[in-house]
Amino acid sequence: MFITFEGVDLCGKTTQAEILVQRLKNSGFDVVFLREPGGTKISELIRNILLDSQNKEMDPITELFLFSASRAQLVREIVIPSLNSGKIVVCDRFYDSTLAYQGYGRGIEIEKIKIVNELASGGLVPDLTFLIDIPVDEIYKRKKEKYGDFDRMERSGIEFYERVRKGYLEIAKISDRFFIIDGQKKIDEISDQIWTIVSEKLKVKVK
Amino acid sequence: MFITFEGVDLCGKTTQAEILVQRLKNSGFDVVFLREPGGTKISELIRNILLDSQNKEMDPITELFLFSASRAQLVREIVIPSLNSGKIVVCDRFYDSTLAYQGYGRGIEIEKIKIVNELASGGLVPDLTFLIDIPVDEIYKRKKEKYGDFDRMERSGIEFYERVRKGYLEIAKISDRFFIIDGQKKIDEISDQIWTIVSEKLKVKVK
Repeated sequence: MFITFEGVDLCGKTTQAEILVQRLKNSGFDVVFLREPGGTKISELIRNILLDSQNKEMDPITELFLFSASRAQLVREIVIPSLNSGKIVVCDRFYDSTLAYQGYGRGIEIEKIKIVNELASGGLVPDLTFLIDIPVDEIYKRKKEKYGDFDRMERSGIEFYERVRKGYLEIAKISDRFFIIDGQKKIDEISDQIWTIVSEKLKVKVK
Repeated sequence: MFITFEGVDLCGKTTQAEILVQRLKNSGFDVVFLREPGGTKISELIRNILLDSQNKEMDPITELFLFSASRAQLVREIVIPSLNSGKIVVCDRFYDSTLAYQGYGRGIEIEKIKIVNELASGGLVPDLTFLIDIPVDEIYKRKKEKYGDFDRMERSGIEFYERVRKGYLEIAKISDRFFIIDGQKKIDEISDQIWTIVSEKLKVKVK
């Protein structure tokens, strides 16, 4: 089973992915936990380029291809072999991020991104995707809490996140594999909700 | 004017590109000479990943996206601004390499590569493309000359280059911007042939 977590920055998806991985392990499953971009030697080299704040001049199309390159390697080197050997793979972000951020957020043509995503993933589709949804003013609030005297988010930043969030909700609406989770609930409430869905899917007795 | 050089490894395209650049400069043109992958800070970081022989496990799709990411950045940061300011841009390899190597050579679907190429180039098409064509046994001969006791090229290597060469010839056949040059002629003969075509296009008196 291949499970992915999606959502805007600071929505809480990493925390929730970690809790799920722990619960799956406690239930005796062999779990591989990955985060994008990264996860293989080559993908980590690509991650360094993407996350280096010095690379300010990066074009959105360059960004699209770098995320996709990292993903292509991760899928072939880790995800597919792990799934084939019966493991559960949990991934913090996958190609829905690319559609939401580079497509809806940066304005690259959606249909073209879908083709790029399909090439990158080799046609692999997650079995379950959790979209942790929070409103954009909540991102702002959390950034402030996390980074202290965080500068007021620029207008362009707010609009960007509004488009990304809207994009995510649109993608989720038309796909059976998606569960939209209210990210403003308490961590425990969210993780229980996720566990109910996953364990139902795995037909495991909820611990 | 945007001029690209294409062909299999060791066909002589870099030498010919350099000669052309020198002739254009001698004729008073402002010329930007680029080679792929690379040419911008970000593209050079990507080049390092692509050319690092340690990265043996790289998947052909990862390779496709890394070349495309490098190109996307080069086009937006250097090629388009240079063309807009009236310069001549000469590029050693461009997206036809991706079609020939990753498409015909590695077997990735041609139609999908065309979409990736269009995204990477932002729709920019070279005005002139020189395909320096040599038979595959000539590559073998030149590798031996260059690297001394170069190992006999593996069967898979020969077949790969046969597909790449055939791919190039197919691409060139259906496009007006292509000139197929016999790479087995003498360097001077080839460079004169290229100069005749370029100067005709530029309506410059041949020096």
